[in-house]
This record gives sequence, C-alpha cells and structure tokens, in this order.
Amino acid sequence: MDDYATIIGRVLDVRKATVGLTASLGAEDMVAQSMPDASPAKWHLAHTSWFFDRFVLQPLGLPPVRPEYDYLFNSYYDAVGPRHPRSSRGLLTRPTSDEVLAYRRAVDARLADLPGSASSAGSSRLSRAEVVAALELGLHHEQQHQELLLTDIKHLFSQNPLLPAYDASAAPDLAAYASTGAKASAWLSFDGGLREIGHGGSGFAFDNEGPRHKVYLAPFSIASRLVTSGDYQAFIADGGYRRPELWLSEGWAWVQAHAARAPLYWDVEKTAHQARAFTAFTLAGAREVPAHAPVMHVSYYEADAYARWANARLPTETEWEVAASKSNCLEQTFGHAWQWTQSAYAAYPGFRPLAGAFGEYNGKFMVSQMVLRGSSCVTPAGHARLTYRNFFPPSAQWQLSGLRLARDT
Amino acid sequence: MDDYATIIGRVLDVRKATVGLTASLGAEDMVAQSMPDASPAKWHLAHTSWFFDRFVLQPLGLPPVRPEYDYLFNSYYDAVGPRHPRSSRGLLTRPTSDEVLAYRRAVDARLADLPGSASSAGSSRLSRAEVVAALELGLHHEQQHQELLLTDIKHLFSQNPLLPAYDASAAPDLAAYASTGAKASAWLSFDGGLREIGHGGSGFAFDNEGPRHKVYLAPFSIASRLVTSGDYQAFIADGGYRRPELWLSEGWAWVQAHAARAPLYWDVEKTAHQARAFTAFTLAGAREVPAHAPVMHVSYYEADAYARWANARLPTETEWEVAASKSNCLEQTFGHAWQWTQSAYAAYPGFRPLAGAFGEYNGKFMVSQMVLRGSSCVTPAGHARLTYRNFFPPSAQWQLSGLRLARDT
Amino acid sequence: MDDYATIIGRVLDVRKATVGLTASLGAEDMVAQSMPDASPAKWHLAHTSWFFDRFVLQPLGLPPVRPEYDYLFNSYYDAVGPRHPRSSRGLLTRPTSDEVLAYRRAVDARLADLPGSASSAGSSRLSRAEVVAALELGLHHEQQHQELLLTDIKHLFSQNPLLPAYDASAAPDLAAYASTGAKASAWLSFDGGLREIGHGGSGFAFDNEGPRHKVYLAPFSIASRLVTSGDYQAFIADGGYRRPELWLSEGWAWVQAHAARAPLYWDVEKTAHQARAFTAFTLAGAREVPAHAPVMHVSYYEADAYARWANARLPTETEWEVAASKSNCLEQTFGHAWQWTQSAYAAYPGFRPLAGAFGEYNGKFMVSQMVLRGSSCVTPAGHARLTYRNFFPPSAQWQLSGLRLARDT
Amino acid sequence: MDDYATIIGRVLDVRKATVGLTASLGAEDMVAQSMPDASPAKWHLAHTSWFFDRFVLQPLGLPPVRPEYDYLFNSYYDAVGPRHPRSSRGLLTRPTSDEVLAYRRAVDARLADLPGSASSAGSSRLSRAEVVAALELGLHHEQQHQELLLTDIKHLFSQNPLLPAYDASAAPDLAAYASTGAKASAWLSFDGGLREIGHGGSGFAFDNEGPRHKVYLAPFSIASRLVTSGDYQAFIADGGYRRPELWLSEGWAWVQAHAARAPLYWDVEKTAHQARAFTAFTLAGAREVPAHAPVMHVSYYEADAYARWANARLPTETEWEVAASKSNCLEQTFGHAWQWTQSAYAAYPGFRPLAGAFGEYNGKFMVSQMVLRGSSCVTPAGHARLTYRNFFPPSAQWQLSGLRLARDT
Repeated sequence: MDDYATIIGRVLDVRKATVGLTASLGAEDMVAQSMPDASPAKWHLAHTSWFFDRFVLQPLGLPPVRPEYDYLFNSYYDAVGPRHPRSSRGLLTRPTSDEVLAYRRAVDARLADLPGSASSAGSSRLSRAEVVAALELGLHHEQQHQELLLTDIKHLFSQNPLLPAYDASAAPDLAAYASTGAKASAWLSFDGGLREIGHGGSGFAFDNEGPRHKVYLAPFSIASRLVTSGDYQAFIADGGYRRPELWLSEGWAWVQAHAARAPLYWDVEKTAHQARAFTAFTLAGAREVPAHAPVMHVSYYEADAYARWANARLPTETEWEVAASKSNCLEQTFGHAWQWTQSAYAAYPGFRPLAGAFGEYNGKFMVSQMVLRGSSCVTPAGHARLTYRNFFPPSAQWQLSGLRLARDT
Repeated sequence: MDDYATIIGRVLDVRKATVGLTASLGAEDMVAQSMPDASPAKWHLAHTSWFFDRFVLQPLGLPPVRPEYDYLFNSYYDAVGPRHPRSSRGLLTRPTSDEVLAYRRAVDARLADLPGSASSAGSSRLSRAEVVAALELGLHHEQQHQELLLTDIKHLFSQNPLLPAYDASAAPDLAAYASTGAKASAWLSFDGGLREIGHGGSGFAFDNEGPRHKVYLAPFSIASRLVTSGDYQAFIADGGYRRPELWLSEGWAWVQAHAARAPLYWDVEKTAHQARAFTAFTLAGAREVPAHAPVMHVSYYEADAYARWANARLPTETEWEVAASKSNCLEQTFGHAWQWTQSAYAAYPGFRPLAGAFGEYNGKFMVSQMVLRGSSCVTPAGHARLTYRNFFPPSAQWQLSGLRLARDT
Repeated sequence: MDDYATIIGRVLDVRKATVGLTASLGAEDMVAQSMPDASPAKWHLAHTSWFFDRFVLQPLGLPPVRPEYDYLFNSYYDAVGPRHPRSSRGLLTRPTSDEVLAYRRAVDARLADLPGSASSAGSSRLSRAEVVAALELGLHHEQQHQELLLTDIKHLFSQNPLLPAYDASAAPDLAAYASTGAKASAWLSFDGGLREIGHGGSGFAFDNEGPRHKVYLAPFSIASRLVTSGDYQAFIADGGYRRPELWLSEGWAWVQAHAARAPLYWDVEKTAHQARAFTAFTLAGAREVPAHAPVMHVSYYEADAYARWANARLPTETEWEVAASKSNCLEQTFGHAWQWTQSAYAAYPGFRPLAGAFGEYNGKFMVSQMVLRGSSCVTPAGHARLTYRNFFPPSAQWQLSGLRLARDT
Repeated sequence: MDDYATIIGRVLDVRKATVGLTASLGAEDMVAQSMPDASPAKWHLAHTSWFFDRFVLQPLGLPPVRPEYDYLFNSYYDAVGPRHPRSSRGLLTRPTSDEVLAYRRAVDARLADLPGSASSAGSSRLSRAEVVAALELGLHHEQQHQELLLTDIKHLFSQNPLLPAYDASAAPDLAAYASTGAKASAWLSFDGGLREIGHGGSGFAFDNEGPRHKVYLAPFSIASRLVTSGDYQAFIADGGYRRPELWLSEGWAWVQAHAARAPLYWDVEKTAHQARAFTAFTLAGAREVPAHAPVMHVSYYEADAYARWANARLPTETEWEVAASKSNCLEQTFGHAWQWTQSAYAAYPGFRPLAGAFGEYNGKFMVSQMVLRGSSCVTPAGHARLTYRNFFPPSAQWQLSGLRLARDT
C-alpha cells in the first residue's frame, strides 16, 4: 500500500494548492474566458479533477462522479470521446464554482479511498503500476494547470479597464525580480562534441522528454543571465519594432497585424518616461518594475528579433540543456522566466508516445510550436526539470516567457 | 413636488423589478456574454443605473456615484464620452455583481432624495420638466433592458450543454402559449384611404414614434392571429429551408451560412417526431410546446419566407397600426410575440431626434433594421403601445419575434 | 414580324454598344475581379449574352449555344440552376475573351434570325408577346451591365498603382462636370397632399417600379442641384469624418473600420491643397476636377452624414419622384450622379414580381438596401426613367452615387 | 571575361526556358491569382527579371529599366524598399504580358551586354565576384520560379469548372509516373553514428544549405521508394480522414476546417470506383493515373498521418540526406515528388545569412515551416541537390509534395 499512500498523499497536497490559488477570486472571476487560448479558472479546477476521474477512477471500475462532465471538461483527448468546444468554455456559468468545488471534493474523497478500495475492485482495467503512473501524471498535469490558471487570470484581468489585482501583497509574478540585482551578463563558453540530453533515469518525466539520446554539438557560448527589461527597453528605443530587418518574415507580419510596440502587459506610455524601470500589468495590478528584472511576456518573434538586434541568437534546446546541466554555471535557470529556444517542438529520436489516451498528452502537438526551457516564477515548486520541454506557438505572449542569448563561439 | 414624487416612485418600482429578474441567477450567470449582440445580466443592471446617474443625477450637479463607471457602462452615447467595447462586456468580472447592486442602491437612494435635494441644487443644468422627462425616459429604458436581460440570459443558457432553466416554474416565455387555444386564424379586411399613425397625444412615447402623420393606405387584409408553431412546422415539412425561391437573396445566403433548419432554440430532431407539439429550449429549460402556440425566435428572413410560402406577405407597420387600433379586432396584438413587419426602420415625416445625447437613443439606428410591432410575453406590463416601434436587424433571432400575415385585398 | 424586327434591332444595337465599351481593354483587363461586388468585364459580356440564350433562345426550343456556360454565367437565378460562385469570377481565364466574343456573335446571329425562325419553332414554351417582353428585359438588363462594366473596371484600375486610364480622351465619368457651372443651389418647395408615384403607363419598366400608387406627402423642400465636391470639401474640413454625432451608428462603425476620410477615389493628400478643385481617380486616370462638380462615389452613410451636417436630410424616393416629375424644376436630375434617397428598397403596395425566373430580377433583393434615383453620366442613353429605382447596400461607394438635399418645410 | 560569359550564357538559357513555360498560356491566364500563396504567371516573369535588374544591373550603375517596377515586382525584400501587397498581384492587369515580355527582353539585353559594359562602369557597387554570385543566385532563383509558375497555374486551372489543360501532350506533372513500375518498397537500414550533412564544397548552394556540419544519428531505416497513390488509397479506405488518433492536433483541425478527404486535386468520387488508379486534375487536365504513381499534393499533416497509420514516421532531413548520399541506394530521390521530412525548417549550426538584401532570401522564413527534400518531376534539370532544402508551411498542398517513410531500427 505504501506506493499508493505516498502518491495519493502528494496528489492531494497538489490539489489542495490548486484550490488555494483561487482564494482571491470571486465567482465571476472564475467563469470568464478572455481568449480562446486561455481557460476560465473554474474550468481548470474542473478539468484537473476530471483527469483523475476519467483516467484513474473510471478505469478502476468506479462510475463517473458526474457523467455529464465527461463532455464538459475533456480538454483534447479524442480517445475518450467528444468535448465542449474550447472557445466556448467561458459560457459555462453552470456548473457553478461551488458545484465544481464539490466535484473536486468528491474526486478527492475517492482518491483518498483508493488504497483501501482499489485492491478490491474486480473490474479494474489498470494494473497497480498503471494506477500509480496515472496518478503521477495527474499530479504533474495539475501542476501545469496551476501555472496556466495564473497566466489565464492575469490575461483576463489585463482586459479589464479597472486593472484588478489578483494578489496585491504576494504579487507572485514579481517574484522573478525579487532577488535579481544589477549583476552583468557574462558569456559562458562550451566546447563542442557529442553530448547526451533528454530524460533517461528514474523519476517522473513527460514522454516528450525522452528518450535520452546523443547529440553532436558545435562549440557555443550562452549568456549567464536572462535578458533584462532594461536591455529590452534599449531594443525598443533603437527602433526594434520599426525595423523589418530584425524580424522573421512571419514575425514582422505579426508586429504589423498587432501594432506591437512592446511586450504584452507593458504600459508603453508610462515606460517611455522611466530610465530604470518599466510599468506593467502584473498579478498585483499595475506596477513599476526595476529595469534589471528579466523581460517577460515576449513572443518567440520578439525574442528572436531581440537576439538578432543583439548580434546573438537564441540557444537550441540542446545547448540550453547542456549548459544548464553544468552545475553552478547558468543563473536564472529556473524560477524566473521560461526561455524561448530556437528549437521547434519535435520528437526526440526514438520517441514513443504513451499508450492510449495519454499518448495524446504531448505527441500530437509536435508541429508549429517552439520549445521553452527552464521555468518561471509561478511554476509550482518541484515541477520543472533540466529536461523539461515546454512548448507554445511562436505568437504566444501570455505565458511568462523571456529569453537568454547564445552565440557561436 | 408631486410630479417628482410620482415619477420617482414609478422609477423605483421598475428598478426593483429589474433586480427581481436576477433572483434565480448565480454570480457566474451574471457576467457571461454569449455573443456580441447580447449583454451580461450584470451589465444590464449597471447600465440602467448609469443611465440615471449620467443623465439625471450628474446634470443636477451631483458627482458621479462611481466615476469609472462612466466608461464601463456607457452603451453607445458618443455625446457623453468613450466606452468599453460592446463585445468585451463579458470580461468585466469586476465590478462584481455585489458591487453593481451596491451601485444600484446608491443611485436609487439619490433618486429617492431628489424631491428634497433637487430644488436646492444650484448647479443643475436641467429644468424641472427636463428632469421629469429624463426620469420618464430612464424608466422606459429600464423596461427595455428588462426584456433584453431575459432574451440575453436565454441565449446564454441555450449555449450550455446542461440546458439550465432560468425559472422552471414561472416559465416566463411560455406565457405566450397559456391562453391560446386552437382557434383558427381569419382574414380581417380593411378599406384603403388616408389614415393617421404615430404618437401624437400626451403620455410618454419614444421620439421615433412621432410625429403623428397621415399615410395613404391601399385596401388590405391582415390575419386575426399570429402564425403558430404548427403552421411553421408545415412550412418546414414542405421543404421551406431547402427552397431558394421562397427566400430573399440575403435570407437564402443566411440559411446556407448558418445551416438554418428551424427557428432558434427548436430541437429539430425531437420536433420531427411530434405532430401536435415542438420541443424547444425555453426559460424553463427544454420543453414540449403545443403546436397552436405562436412561432417565436424567427429572423426577418424566416418570417418573410414563411409569408411567401403561405401566399401572403408581412404587413407594413402602417397596416399593423391601423388594424391594431381598431378595437376588438386583432387577437394576440400584445403580450405574445413581437411581430416582424415589412417596414424598414426609418424616420417618420417630420421626425426630430431628442436634443443632446438622448437624440442618440433611436435616431442613429435608422438603417439596415426592420420594424417589429406589438410586444412579447416578456415585455414588462405597461411598456408597449399601439405606436411602439421595436427594431432589429433582419438576421436577429434571439428576440421573441414572430409574425402575423397580411395580404392585398 | 414588325414587333420582332424592331425589338431585335434595338437589342442588337445595344449589344454592339456593350462590346464597344471594351475597345480600350486588353485581354488581361477583361478577366480580373477587384472585389466580390464587382465582376470582370468579360463576365459582363458573357452574362448578358447568356441572358438572351437562356431566357429567349432556349425557351424557343434552340439548344444552348454553349451548354457549360449555363453554369458559368448564371448570375443569381436559382430557378434555372446552380452557378459559379460570384467571388470566383476573376478566376475564369477560360473561356477567353475571344471565345466570349464568339459566344456573343453566335447569340447575336440567332437573335437576328429570330423573326424568320421563331414562328416555325414548334417547341417554343413562350408566346410571341413573351418573347418580345423577354427581349425588352434583356435589352434593359444589358444596359444596366454597361454601367456596371464601367464602374467595375474603374474600381479595378483604381487598385493598380499605375492608375491606368480606361479612356483618357473621352473621360466618360467626367461628363457629369462638363456643363455644370457655379450656379448656386436653391430650395424648391412642394406642397403636401396625395400624390401618385410609380410606373403605370405603357412603355417598359422594371417590375419594381410599379404599380403606380397613391402616397400622402407632407410639404417639403428639395435642392435644385446636387451637392458639389466643393460643398463636400467643407464637410471634410469641418471634421465631418471625425464627429460621430453626424453619423448613423452603423455608418460611424463603417468610418472607423475603413478609416474613411473622403469619398472613394479621392486623393486626399492632393485635394487638401486645392481650394477650387479636388483630385480623384477617374476613368481618364487621376484628374483634377472643379469643385462645382457633383460629389460622387459616396456611400449612403456619407450622404446621410453630409445631410445631417448641412441641417438637412436626404429626400424620400417619393419626394424625389414628385419633384422630378414637375417639368423644368430640378436640375441635374439625370445624367450626372445617382442620388441616394432615405428610402429603403421595398415593394410598392400591390407589387407582384414577374412570373418565373424573371421574378428573381428585382424582388429578392428587397432588404438591407437603399434606393437611388436619377441616373449618372455613364448610364446609357434612354435607360433611366422618372420611376427608375436603383438600389445598393448603404456601404456601396463604387457606383457613381451622389446626393441631393431635402428638408421639411 | 570568361567567367562572365559563362554565367550570363547560362542565365540567358534559363530565362529563355522560363518564357517557354508560358507558351500555352493566353494573356488572361497570365494575370489571374487563385490564392494569396500563388502568383500570376506574368508576375513570375516580371519578378525574376526585376531580380536581375535590382540586384545586378542597378548596383552596376545602370538606371532601372522601369523604375515603377521596383515597387510592383519586389516580392519580399524589405532592404530595397516597399512593395505591392502579395494578395493583390492578380489585380495587376497592367503592365500587360506584352509589356512584361518587353521588360524581360530589355533586362536580357543588358545582361548580354554585361561582359563588355560592366568593366567600364565606374559606379559599380559590386565587385566582379559579387556580380557573378548575384547572377548565379538569380539563375537558381529563376529556376525556383519556373516550378512555382507551374504549380500556381495548376492551382488556377483547377479552380476553373472547365478544367483546362496547361499542356495536354507533354503533361509535365505526369512525368513522375512514367517510369515507375509496380516494384515494391523495401526498408533500407542505416547504422547510427556521427555523420556530416549540408553543403560544404564548391559549386552553388543556397545559404541555408550550409555550413556543412556533424550530426549524430541513431540507426534508422528508410523506404526505398515513395509512398504510392495506391498505398494512400488504402489509408483513405481505412478511414484515414475520419480517425483523429492518426493526426497531429493541428492537422485534425485542418481536416475538419477544410473537410479534407483526399490529396488536393483528387477527384474523390471517381477515384472511389477505381482499384488500380485514381483520377486527378493534372497539368494535362483531368487524368486517370496508375495507382503505383507516387502520391502528390499532400500537406505535411497528411504525410504525417499516413506515416502514423503505416506504423512508421517521416524521416528527418538528416536521415534523408545521409540515405540519399549513399549511391544506388534510394530510388525516386529526385525528379518525382518533393518529400516531406519531420524536420522544421531551421538554421544549421553556424548558419550566416548572405549579406544585404540577399540575406532575406532564406533566413527570415525559419519558423513555422517544414523541410522537403529531393525534387519533383517539374523541378528544372540541374536545380536540385543532395543538400537542397525546400520548405513550406505544414498546410501547403499545392506543391508536388509526397512522402517517403522511415522508422527506427
């Protein structure tokens, strides 16, 4: 029973933290969806519970807690049936937040009962190891949604002319800036040669992190720190958003279509008058932020254009992982901002998706997206890894995405 | 003081009723916006209060109750400043419903104090008669929003796969059917000649209802009753939605673009098996409705196509008003369903919009819309009039819009 | 035979003139389509021929000249079968212009043979009177397309940075300005009372021009002349395109969506420096035009906003027809610019569409369009009438549409 | 002078061949643009000439042949100025095809004069080696447009209900099928290890083909032949287009949005009844094609889904190049169909774009596109190379794109 008890205890802790993230939200904040890419907070609460209901409890022979939720809260798993359209999630005023919280409690109660009940369930379609693996996946899945819940609520609040604060005191997305002084960035050089990257050992990892494999690497240098907001202000001041030669063709089209002038959430007017700071919308409302803080909320297009302007380039994910794996080398590897790489999200050599619906978790998104590495200041503790591969379309700005420079040596 | 006391008492009664309409709604139901044409219930509560704050209280010299609401809850009055985009109303999770209700109470309290305070306010830009007129307009404005609140919440709930009921017992949009038996429709004939229509007497009317004016009318016949759902089922069964010759060109394009097969909210699959009823989504949830009930939620295109199929036509608004003004003649004139006319919404001869921002109330919409006459079963008591001109674009289905046939004699 | 010979002679004359309009066009000019509302010149040549083939020759028992053209060159007649999508007309590089011209000649030859052959055709589904009526309709139809051919080629050429001239010497759309001096506009007053409008006598008219019917009219005044470009420059200079209070709500949205600043084809930059002229793209290329010339290429929204700015309004079509029917009264009634009225395009009392496919000619467009009266300087001679009802959506600018003011007396 | 004479001779030969490709086109075929991705044939003729004028002749001190063409026929080079919008190329009925051909001749004449004139031009901004390099690039550029001219005209003709043939006798896109018998596909195995790919030697290559660099490769197998149309029919028959589990998420959305059921140009209805053939639109019109012919005109999504269905995968571009470089190994490497790889189009390690405007040729497209290798049956002779990297967005179907399977060993 020990394996069950341990993983279930960890799952329930994580799930408690998810609910905790909504403590400052009113019922109305829970339901709204500010764009198709984002989901309502309530939907995150429900979907992460459905994940356990559908992929752990139901295969063990338990009836669905709420059968109608199989349709409402399936995100994208074609293998387990049809689903409510993503762009209409904000219209689900029912079930209410209270009903969703009750659903969470019901799922939690069944999970808590698992050590006792599962062994006796005759109709399970899962082995014990499979149950543990599904619980572990559900835990990491829920952690991913914790971060998404924050980035989505930030986007929602940013659309409100009142600019409400999610948490004015904790200010979770300002944590990235807390400890970062004015220390200059240095170029760290790495030899070329045959290296290994990817997840290969024990411990949890998503399927897309493996298999561990050899990669030949040319010599390269990588910046010790992330690009700061002050650095990025210099790019803007130098006409960065007006010079097509700095941009990918698709990026320049994006600049023009969106009349982009700065990272998402920057208050351009106010920032223009600040030498050592910029003003931005944060989870604590509109704030003045020191210029030495890492730049965040840039698209891949912006990251790439900045790097070109700086006579550098973005690192590949291999370079990033090799550099980051050398202890005491890179700063701001984790816990500040996700870092765009120049690597398109693709299968590693020998990649095999998980069996069944879990195979849809990562593999089916391997086109038209770019890999980000590291983690952000709102990534849950214990979630990120050296081999972790985050991925988003090149136009995405609403994640806490920044960049670190690299160059050929 | 009597004029003040009377009108303010009436205003406060109407405003109380508005809040009453939201009794069954949760906070989440209050914020969602299901399409750009519809508004959140909370927005209706706030906007109708802002109307009094901005057009009665502020001109009397009072400071805005909440200055930031001048931007958030202005609907379309360019004369009084910029406004939040209509299609983003559903993202306003703040102010919360509780804050909006507090705003309502603050406005109500100031309105209740008016008889005492207004006379002493030295800075009023309004005469006493103007204040009374603005209050009267605000009252009727609020009644319009009462009906819109219901049609908008109906549309929102219809988008939810759970098909929640707004009010399963009162079933307000089923009232249209309550008293209507199977009595057949008759053709009522009217002589031609010079007639007068439009508002000309005392009592409140919107500016677009006047001036009263002469119209020359050819002889015509008009149906004694509204087209029923059973009638409309026969049109569908006869291939109504598959025969382009029955439709206006723009209507046929609309049928194809929307794959339209029935009025909005009809459950086509279920209805196909019902001889004397149809199944539709209502404010009481999905319901079986008797076939003798008036058809509702048809667009102008559908109303027009039905009429052509029936070898008839829609009445002009002049014909409608002349027929409806003859006592004991038409049935179902008011209180069942709004009735599309073949008249485009336009200025009457000699029309002058009200002065100032109130001039934007009706006049600036006089293009690309069609007039509906009568009233529906959810129109507030006392709101409709013989001269009342409702108007919507020809594609609108989400109002309680039905039709009455006419023909040349 | 005389009736046949006469009408066929007239038809062939008109058809010859159509081909003449394309004399200055190269093959490439013939095929391009600059927007879905416009059609290629070649398509006009083919469609007008198809009209005779399909509605005169085929009903007389003749086989189609080119069976595949029944699909390609049907415009919108659902009654006679499916058709090529309107927005793809510009992709029909085949049949070539030469093939289309050969098609025209084949149709013309059959038409020329009609007097001899028709009487002997045993399989005709048309009476002789019906043939004559169809020929007459085809003639007027072809004249309509003559004007459309010019407005469509003008739009196409305006999209070319080289600004090519259709006809630099004849300059057909400048004819409107030729004879118009600086004579001031006067207000002409008309008594109210019962009047008759619409087509009622003999001679050809479209079905939508009848029946002749009584209308009661309030007293009104109407401007003796059209609004000039100089008048319109004053509207622009007074902030006309920046003041929402002058516009219909839908019109203001149109201004913002299109960043409208002037009538279509005006060169705003150049015009801003010209006191007594404006620079515009014309069928003779970019030209400086005197300010006393009528303003053209305005949408209904612009016409309506101008009238409001001028403390006036647009006339109704009844007012226009009553005023225009009084001899020696209005100037610039015909032959200068089409004149927007404030009347939505609708059926006259007692209107009956023609039988069969011809019933689709006018009746199915009676929604969401506004009536224009008079005629333009490129309307073919003999085509316009006092009762003629042209109609376009309120956003249309590419026709030679101007305006004449009216006001209540 | 020899280097000049040689390259100019080759350039003029290639340019002559370009004009030859339009021999069967009428003037109208030359101007139409069937979608924003495609360009008119005339535009290809003009743009390839502009390339020499702008990048060879003007830098040598010669005035532009036609200054206004710098705007009209610049494709995407921001460094040399603004340009006509891509999606409006089909509206350029002027300059006419004849004028464009005259432009070509003028450019050719200046090129032919280069050996004599260039040395004496005092104002050249280019060294002799740079001129030769620019001529060489212009030659390969022109060859690329030769293939695009054919794929674009094929797309245009496919939109015409008459399905015209570009060349019924030569049938250039059927050449792929000519020599291919029913020989079965075999799996060819390759050891893993450190390999080198990319252009490194002498001879022309595009900048994106280098630098030559080491890649570590796991063992893999690759199919000896391309996937045939018959293979692909089996995929369709097995529900390939109805099974989401076979598709990338973005691919499945594409299937639904486009109601995709088969490769572009397939006549699904006819093909469904053919066991050993399929019917498709080709440059020779609609043709029945043997099932052993390579499948073509599939998007990356389709290629990827097919591979998943076949329990295989697409090769990486490294695998493709390593396999193709081993002589007598792969069949159908060149001259049949471009082959989608699973590699996103990205910079090779150490990649440096060419200096100046030529740097925009390839580098700025390195996002959101996938690499295709090999060449098609309409690729000009001598154009393809082992290291050649073609690239298109994953949704592109109008190129002659097929696939070859790979798998892990």
